[in-house]
Amino acid sequence: MPKKKELTYLDVAEAWPRLAASDRARRLKQLPPDVGHEFFLDLSAADQAEVVLALQPAERRPWVRLLAPDDVADLIQAAPAEQRVGLLALLDEPTRAEVTALLAYAEDEAGGLMNPRYIRVRPEMTAAEALSYFRRQAQERSGRDTPTYAYILDAEGKLVGQVTLTDLIAEDPTTSVARLMHTDIVTIPAEADQEEVAHVFAEHSLVAAPVVDAAGRMKGVVTADDVVAVVEEEATEDIQKLGGSEALDAPYLKTALARMVRKRAGWLASLFLGEMLTATAMARFEHEIARAVVLALFVPLMISSGGNSGSQASTLVIRAMALGEVRLRDWWHVLRREIGAGFALGCVLAVIGFLRILVWQAAGGLYGPHYFAIAVTVATSLVGIVMWGTMAGAMLPFILRRLGFDPASASAPFVATLVDVSGILIYFTVASLVLAGRLL
Amino acid sequence: MPKKKELTYLDVAEAWPRLAASDRARRLKQLPPDVGHEFFLDLSAADQAEVVLALQPAERRPWVRLLAPDDVADLIQAAPAEQRVGLLALLDEPTRAEVTALLAYAEDEAGGLMNPRYIRVRPEMTAAEALSYFRRQAQERSGRDTPTYAYILDAEGKLVGQVTLTDLIAEDPTTSVARLMHTDIVTIPAEADQEEVAHVFAEHSLVAAPVVDAAGRMKGVVTADDVVAVVEEEATEDIQKLGGSEALDAPYLKTALARMVRKRAGWLASLFLGEMLTATAMARFEHEIARAVVLALFVPLMISSGGNSGSQASTLVIRAMALGEVRLRDWWHVLRREIGAGFALGCVLAVIGFLRILVWQAAGGLYGPHYFAIAVTVATSLVGIVMWGTMAGAMLPFILRRLGFDPASASAPFVATLVDVSGILIYFTVASLVLAGRLL
Repeated sequence: MPKKKELTYLDVAEAWPRLAASDRARRLKQLPPDVGHEFFLDLSAADQAEVVLALQPAERRPWVRLLAPDDVADLIQAAPAEQRVGLLALLDEPTRAEVTALLAYAEDEAGGLMNPRYIRVRPEMTAAEALSYFRRQAQERSGRDTPTYAYILDAEGKLVGQVTLTDLIAEDPTTSVARLMHTDIVTIPAEADQEEVAHVFAEHSLVAAPVVDAAGRMKGVVTADDVVAVVEEEATEDIQKLGGSEALDAPYLKTALARMVRKRAGWLASLFLGEMLTATAMARFEHEIARAVVLALFVPLMISSGGNSGSQASTLVIRAMALGEVRLRDWWHVLRREIGAGFALGCVLAVIGFLRILVWQAAGGLYGPHYFAIAVTVATSLVGIVMWGTMAGAMLPFILRRLGFDPASASAPFVATLVDVSGILIYFTVASLVLAGRLL
Repeated sequence: MPKKKELTYLDVAEAWPRLAASDRARRLKQLPPDVGHEFFLDLSAADQAEVVLALQPAERRPWVRLLAPDDVADLIQAAPAEQRVGLLALLDEPTRAEVTALLAYAEDEAGGLMNPRYIRVRPEMTAAEALSYFRRQAQERSGRDTPTYAYILDAEGKLVGQVTLTDLIAEDPTTSVARLMHTDIVTIPAEADQEEVAHVFAEHSLVAAPVVDAAGRMKGVVTADDVVAVVEEEATEDIQKLGGSEALDAPYLKTALARMVRKRAGWLASLFLGEMLTATAMARFEHEIARAVVLALFVPLMISSGGNSGSQASTLVIRAMALGEVRLRDWWHVLRREIGAGFALGCVLAVIGFLRILVWQAAGGLYGPHYFAIAVTVATSLVGIVMWGTMAGAMLPFILRRLGFDPASASAPFVATLVDVSGILIYFTVASLVLAGRLL
């Protein structure tokens, strides 16, 4: 066991999920200042807000001032409404104005992601004058995070072009910026969703992009390093939803157990309620099962095949939607593909299932005199169930998006639950047709 | 219908998945040159290789030369071995040397991701001399993608520091670079996995990072815009695996149907074979089912609850592993959490299931005189099944990683298949104990 002499980053990280807000704040203060600052900067905005509010009002100011304006805005959005004015009051005047402007945007929009500080120059300035702006930035920020571009705005604040520092030093220092600037710029609307921002960056390999409002006025800059974090965060949310729980919004080990159970219990209980319909569906076929118990043996195999094929289809479609490869209007194209895929996959499983029953029968005579009819029932049902599962899985994300929900909610468990009931209906209906006059 | 006058990007994209290699190459040539180039650059390395090889040897050179050295390396890695020398021969001498060096790295390592071209200066140079390197780059590349840093290497090629352009212009032009440079640099080992590279970028908010070999010699630069694409690609792979299919390695609509069916059939058939054990498990309880058909009605509900809770747990653990939040040695910590979570979630479902049977019984008398014993059976089994599903789902990613497999293969369908059989065993065992002397 390590001695309790000096706390380390790891000590606090290990204990964090189990600590109350006041203990969190106390531990943070016990860390050496630079480690404490690093730990604080690594926290989610929600945790930062909680810790700051757990401190005495007089202690709060230095922690809040550690953060860049966009991060302060996130912290304030994560704090309870009645605390926001007090937190804003901790900032110096110019930062407060910037943060207030950012608070008008949602956290997951380009406007909430951008840095409102950037180098702005006028078109009539010379290269030498523009250079002096970069120089001043470099002195203020001691060489860290130097901006890649300066932006040229007209008298109304509209973006007309951008120059890199290299453009400025490459030319005659008396040339006007207007002559040097590039005008074919990829801009991002302030209300663009952060997922959209990520696609634009990935597609055009951008290092930084200006954010503009509807009138073309420049509002701030989004840089690729912010986007890396966004892409990871969005993927994590989608993956957690695909696993059939709500997004945790915090690292797994930093999420308190009670909170995690709440995030998972909602979906699990809903799926359970939905899945209860299988008991109702099975009850409709109670007589058939009583007469031919052998039919019941294959129920789990049948319904899981529908669920698995549906989960494949829904996952592929959800990811293609998230990447912008598939749009709402592509639903018909996707449906045609998935009908083909579902039929092919259903046939593969049907052949395996058919052979399995014949082989087991030859080995042990497990399925009685009607084994061949049972094999036909299983194989035929599989084609129907897998096709139906595939189609339902592929279409569910479209339906969810059309209704305004997140398509990623069409998780594997959700799709499985949906197609389990229909799988039972398909299987027993096929069985009644094939086995009528024989077993049933 | 649009007239077949001039092909557009979208026309070709729509038809692409259904076209043979030779038709793909022909369509590409029919596009206006700039559109064709854009389309080619947007293709996966595998598709680029296929198209280039479908062209006449004399036509190949301009297409290959469109690509940056790191992208050429990817294309060559995607081409059949016997074609690689021929493709390399299309490059000019210095690019060929660079590409050959890159081919020594795997495509998903930092070495395969980096750009081998960067600005290197000596420590004894002055700021003004170093500036002239940036200026030359700017003229060569006409302002696009200007590098953020120049790197200072010693006589052996070891990285000793970095400067930004802003550092250079901010100071007296006769200062030596050694005095201006920053030495606290985050470097990336050439053999680092691209997922690791992404975490380093996200954690430190990097714009660019130097790649070094084991001896500290600088090999190239990775920039944040490349990392954005990597993070999207890694998340896509994980998500597709989590949905229970192989990673497609290409956009959904650009993947040919036959290829997509192959990618999905393997897992689906394996899961089907695994799921066949449920039929074997059910057969063991054929007598119990024959005596109490009512037991069969709840089988789908029981096994799906195990599958759903397992899929939640495995997904959360897999994502936490991918983000580096959870490591192999955390397995015990995770197991303890998941036992707690599984117990709590199992109790929630048990209460719902118990009430459901009592209410249905009160409404219709569906479950006969022993309804209370059945309700106890269902509720008790649920606690056991959900706990077991949660534990199995949480531990499977650890086991897979320990054995050297990708933890993301522990997909929802895989976990469900694993726990379905044990769910049946738990349910019928509880039933035999509770119902002995009553129904059974």
